[in-house]
Formats: sequence, C-alpha cells, structure tokens
Amino acid sequence: MTDKRNILIQLDPDAQASTFDRVVAVDAGAEVIFSHHSVTPDQVEPLVHGAIFTRGQEDLRHTAIFIGGTDVTQGEALLRRLLATFFGPMRVSVMLDANGANTTAAAAVIAAKKHTPLEGATALVLGGTGPVGQRVAMLLGKEGATVRLASRSAQRAKDTAAQVNQTLGHPRVTGVEAYNHDNTAQALKGVSLLVAAGAAGVKLLSQEQLTGAGSIKAAIDLNAVPPAGIEGIDVMDKAKERHGIVCYGAIGVGGLKMKIHKAAIRSLFESNDKTLDAEAIYAIGQTL
Amino acid sequence: MTDKRNILIQLDPDAQASTFDRVVAVDAGAEVIFSHHSVTPDQVEPLVHGAIFTRGQEDLRHTAIFIGGTDVTQGEALLRRLLATFFGPMRVSVMLDANGANTTAAAAVIAAKKHTPLEGATALVLGGTGPVGQRVAMLLGKEGATVRLASRSAQRAKDTAAQVNQTLGHPRVTGVEAYNHDNTAQALKGVSLLVAAGAAGVKLLSQEQLTGAGSIKAAIDLNAVPPAGIEGIDVMDKAKERHGIVCYGAIGVGGLKMKIHKAAIRSLFESNDKTLDAEAIYAIGQTL
Amino acid sequence: MTDKRNILIQLDPDAQASTFDRVVAVDAGAEVIFSHHSVTPDQVEPLVHGAIFTRGQEDLRHTAIFIGGTDVTQGEALLRRLLATFFGPMRVSVMLDANGANTTAAAAVIAAKKHTPLEGATALVLGGTGPVGQRVAMLLGKEGATVRLASRSAQRAKDTAAQVNQTLGHPRVTGVEAYNHDNTAQALKGVSLLVAAGAAGVKLLSQEQLTGAGSIKAAIDLNAVPPAGIEGIDVMDKAKERHGIVCYGAIGVGGLKMKIHKAAIRSLFESNDKTLDAEAIYAIGQTL
Repeated sequence: MTDKRNILIQLDPDAQASTFDRVVAVDAGAEVIFSHHSVTPDQVEPLVHGAIFTRGQEDLRHTAIFIGGTDVTQGEALLRRLLATFFGPMRVSVMLDANGANTTAAAAVIAAKKHTPLEGATALVLGGTGPVGQRVAMLLGKEGATVRLASRSAQRAKDTAAQVNQTLGHPRVTGVEAYNHDNTAQALKGVSLLVAAGAAGVKLLSQEQLTGAGSIKAAIDLNAVPPAGIEGIDVMDKAKERHGIVCYGAIGVGGLKMKIHKAAIRSLFESNDKTLDAEAIYAIGQTL
Repeated sequence: MTDKRNILIQLDPDAQASTFDRVVAVDAGAEVIFSHHSVTPDQVEPLVHGAIFTRGQEDLRHTAIFIGGTDVTQGEALLRRLLATFFGPMRVSVMLDANGANTTAAAAVIAAKKHTPLEGATALVLGGTGPVGQRVAMLLGKEGATVRLASRSAQRAKDTAAQVNQTLGHPRVTGVEAYNHDNTAQALKGVSLLVAAGAAGVKLLSQEQLTGAGSIKAAIDLNAVPPAGIEGIDVMDKAKERHGIVCYGAIGVGGLKMKIHKAAIRSLFESNDKTLDAEAIYAIGQTL
Repeated sequence: MTDKRNILIQLDPDAQASTFDRVVAVDAGAEVIFSHHSVTPDQVEPLVHGAIFTRGQEDLRHTAIFIGGTDVTQGEALLRRLLATFFGPMRVSVMLDANGANTTAAAAVIAAKKHTPLEGATALVLGGTGPVGQRVAMLLGKEGATVRLASRSAQRAKDTAAQVNQTLGHPRVTGVEAYNHDNTAQALKGVSLLVAAGAAGVKLLSQEQLTGAGSIKAAIDLNAVPPAGIEGIDVMDKAKERHGIVCYGAIGVGGLKMKIHKAAIRSLFESNDKTLDAEAIYAIGQTL
C-alpha cells in the first residue's frame, strides 16, 4: 500500500512544542503531525517503536521524525537516543533542526557561495562557538575553506575548532580570539568571507573594521535582534552591496533558510533511511 | 500563495486542552489545529512568534489563535500578553472564549433582542459579577439598556458595575444586591428583560417572583445544571412563552451560541487583524 | 448533517501519548485525532463533555474515544470514569486497548480457533495473570473451552481465575501453578491449545515439554522479546508446523492483531453506542 498519509512526529524538549516548527511542517506538506513537548531522552524509545512497528517496511517512508525546540544540546541528545533505537532497516527518516541551527547554517553558507568561492578561501566566523557558528565553520571546512573560528575566549575557540575538525576528519578550522580591536583585526587578515553567528543583540564588529579589512567579498550577519552583529549590515540585507562587500542580514538569509527547511521536511518522506543533520540539510539546500 | 491550510492555534491554561473548543474548531472548518495545554503567559511569546514569522504577510490570515479553557481570568492574561507580542501588521487574528463566556453572553443578548427592544429598556442581570454576567451587562449597556447588575454582595455588584461602565465609556450599569425576597423584588421593579448568569445549580429567583413582577417580557436562564437559576424555566426552553414571558433555558440558547462560536472561528481566517472579544463576537452573532 | 469529520480522542495515562496507538488510528481512517497525555480519571469528565455536548445527537457517531497507553489498570480506571460520565443516549463510542491487551488477546484466540476447535477443548494459558493472559482465558472460556490459567504463584492464579469466572458468569477457568518441570507437566496434561502470555523475555516452557506433551495441536507465544516464552517457537512463526504442532510467534500474530485494531477503530464511527473491550473486539476480529 502506498496510500499512507505522511506523518511527521515532532519531538520537542521545550514545555510547549514549537509552533514555528509545526507551521513550517504543515506548509512543507506533512499531512499529519504528532507534536510531543517536554520530551526527554528516556522517553524516546517507545516513541520510536510506535513509528517503526506500525507500518510495513515499504510504508516506513511515510513516517518521519523531526527534532526541534530551542536547545541544540537537548536536541542532539534526543537524536543520539533515537538513532540507537533504530535497528538496521527498521527505522524512519529523521531531521534535527533545534533552534533552526542546521537550516540557518546551511542557508548562510549557500548564500555566501553564490558570491565568493569557498574552496581555498579564508573565512572568519565570529561567535563561532555557538551551535550555528560551529555548523557554519564545519560546512565551510567541508567546502575547502580555511576557517578561523572566533570567540571572546581563546580556549573555547580552540576547543570548538578541535571538535569541528574531528567531525571534518582533517584540520580546516583554527580557533582564534576576537574580543577587541587588535585581535579582531588580526583575525580579519586576508579574510574573503565573514560570518557573524553570535548571541542576539551583541555587536561583534564595527563598520570601520568591516570596510577597513580590504579583502572581504561577502559578509553575513545572522543576528536578527538589533544592534547588528556586524555594524552597518541591515537585518533585511539580501545580497546588498555595501562598500564593495556583498551583505546579508538575518532576514535576508531567512527566505532561503525557510526554503531549505521545507525541502528537507519533504525529503524525509522520500525514503526511510535519511538522517538530516547540518551536512545533509546543506546538500538539500544546494539543490534548490 | 493562497493555498495555505488554515491553522488554528488553541491556547488553553488548563491541564488538558478543552475537547469542547477543539471539536467546535474542527466543525467550524479549521483545517489544522495545534492544541497547547497548561499554557502560561510567559510561554506566549515564542508561541506567537511561530505564528507570525513562518508565513508571508499575505498568508498571515491563514493562521489564527484561539484562547479557551475554563478560567476567564487566565484567558484574559494570555490575551493581554499575546496582543503585546504582536507588532503592527505582524500579527494574526485571535479569539477569546474562555469558559464560553463571550459566545454565551452574545447569544443571550441576541436571543433577548428578538423579543424585546433593548434600547431604553431596564434589564436585570442576576449573578452579574461572573464572567458571563459582566459581558451580558456590557452588551446590554452597549445596546442602550439601563442595566442592574445584581449580586449577593452589594460591594461586588458595585465594583463590577463600575468596571463594566469603564469599558462602556458611560454609566449604563448599576450594581444592586439581590439575596432575599425583598431586595430581589426591589431589583425587579420595572424590568422588561431578566437574565440569570449565576453559578451552576443555584436558584436565584422563585417562579412566584418571576411571574409576579409584571413588567418582564423576556427571561433567560443560562444555568445548565438543575435546579434552574430562574424557577420554572426549563433548560430546553427556546422562546417558550410561560405566563406571558418569553423564556429561554441554557440549552435553548445553546444552539445560537454554537452558531456564533463557529461563525467567529470562520471569521478569524478572513483577515489577520481581528481581535474577537465579547463585542466583536456579538457583532458577528448579529449577522447570522 | 452527516459531513462531520471523524474525530478520535486519544486518552493516554502515560507522559507521552502513544505514537503506536496514534499511527494505527491514522491508518484506520480517523480523520482528526486529539491526543491527550498524562490523563487522570478526574480529568475525564470535561474531556467527555466536550465530546458529547458539541455535536447533535445524529452526529455523535463521528466522535469516538480511544483509551490506550502502557498501563492496563490505569486504562480501565479511565474507562470506568468515562462510562459513568455518559448519560443514556448522550454518549460516544469508546475502545480500550491499553498495552494492546485486548487486540492481542483477540488475535491469539482467533488464530488458535483456525487450527483447533475451542468448544470443549482443554487450554493452558501460561503467564495467565497478566492483562493479556486474563483476556485470553476469558475469551477461551466464552468459546466453551476448559481453561487452566497458570502462574508461578498458585494464589495469584486462583484469584485471577475467580475474577475471570465472574466476568464469564460460570466457572470455566481454573488457576494452576506452573513454575517447575513437574507442575508444568501436570498443567499440560490433555491440553490441546497452549498460549504463553508471560512477561517479555521470560522462558515459560522448554521445547522438550512442548513436544513431549503429546496432546498439543496449537501453541501461541505472545512474547516478542527473546528468549521466547515457549522454547522453539520463532517470533515470526505464523501457522508454522513444528513437530506436528501449529505454532505462532508474537509477530506471526501481529498482522492479525493490527487488522483487528484497525477494524475496531473503524467500527467506532458506525454508531455512538459501542464500548469495545476484549469481547467486542474479539467479535469484530471474527468478522475479518
């Protein structure tokens, strides 16, 4: 039978399941959505069993799981438990996009790639230790860029870079500190791509440093709450040229992010063997 | 795009989201319903953000919010927070009908208006300090009636009347006490419309006083649980004439209440700027 | 109006509503499902009122209630409260299948009946004091079999047998102890039908005793987790002949169980007066 309705099981660690995630799922064509809130790792097993033991092998692709909510660490813990519960072909497709980190990172890197080559480029990721920054650094490394992952703390920058390099399998990412004019200037040397992925409302770079760096071709600020992470970039900027630099703001990237999110949800129902994390979601984004 | 499915987000402060509210929403044509229970005011912001940041401006009318549950005070607190989260045109339509208070009050006043003029009439609302009673008094005041809002406590009656008058913008409502034969008789003098909106199963008026008052043209008892709030009115009465008085019981008003409720839900999806409280719901009811 | 969508209200005492129960409900054609988790008996009344006071008498068959989750005792408590909330024709159809106990027991007995007559047969139910075992014993007794309900504890076996006999209205079931080779051999004497309904992963019978008993025509092991409850039966066995005995494993019975579950859900929407417990579900299974 292939007349099964497409069911998306939304697992959310937050006290209220995200309406954002659910509206996007509806608009991506998920016909039935089961929304679970306050989900803890020890509750995952029966939730997964209900997904894999109810439909025949050939119909498993019509059931999928989405892990969302605001906390990426909690989302990753749910994903680990979930993947451990599958056995062999008895599984369903799953997507992780807690706090929108995977779709946001994918959209930022895809937007950048339209304007500047990534292979061999030198990129700087400000606010690089957060979930979005880490993913941006990883995807850029994957594309062959040399990445500087910046943080106010040199130690956290190095630790995070080491983690990302382990994921990559080779050292593409270096942790650097950037908390004042001088070390930020140092981090900017020779950079062609700049991405700011810091906390909401924290200014990470002055307009003077942005335009003074000279080598920057594209700059993307993922901060949606004023003030901008990169001074001078407007939240609505979408490939807007400013002082010779192609600029994107958070909402400017947002349209692509939403397209990627919906395409990823749709792809969950193509087969039962997908695990959509940052890389797989980035791959989907590149086909759009 | 206008092929978006109509999503109703049900926010309920109770431990289980109301099945009553949800069945009515289904029957009113809401295509997808997100049911949230145990909702507190501090959880409203992200729930609203998911509603307003996921669809384009032109599609926002396809998402709406319904605030229900049993506690009107909690429902009003959610509504306040929700309206404060909207900014300008970035909003969706919203309806408040906690404990059915708005649709019940609207139905009662519309039923009354079919049988007796409200403009210039003298009306008595027994059990007037509760959420339904307050709303009945307000709508009657709006229609130009002189309203006596009665309670067992003179103080609470006065306080509530003052509150309703503030909403109205002019003094139409007077608080009166009615806890025994004599002060109830006093409250009944010259009254052409009587509405009982007291607690379930509490008798507020004897049949003798009802028929003895002389001036009453219509009497509506909104109490669904025996004994009746107004002795002699049957819960099924629907424009039933008794001793020259047109009578309605709770179920007799219920059919109209349900029609109003469904029409209000449907109207939520006509534009993204509606805030359906007692007055707006009453206006919708009058078009039916 | 008969254009109402079929609504299934899922009541689940567990912290997360069963995805198993919900996927099956979707596949059985329930158009809209309300999933309630952490449901306690004192919350049942308003949940039921929402089901019975929202649609007209002629449309009540389009709303139904499913009680599921993992705990049969909690499920039965919800059912009792629910039936007490209905009054006369003001009710909706309801199905209880907590832990799949009713559909599993029905499937096991129907599978057995295909291969050996039940009327006048002697049957042994190992692990008979659990919810599935009790229901298997009851259904076999109903079909006219003489049933031995076995447990490691003679007392619990007797108490449970007494309970089942009370349900049956006549003494068909005897409690027996079976915890070692000798008393199990005693319990097996003259048995033509053997059902194992013990705890997951507990071996209740050796292959030697199974084949040595001589009289057994059919053996059904409802344990899905290795080791098998009856040694030598594979979880996939479906009417597989082994040493002259027709054998079923848990998954072998599972296909029929799912068919019964879906047929039962569908039948809920045929009228508003059904209470689907073990017997009624068994009756539905026999029509398939």
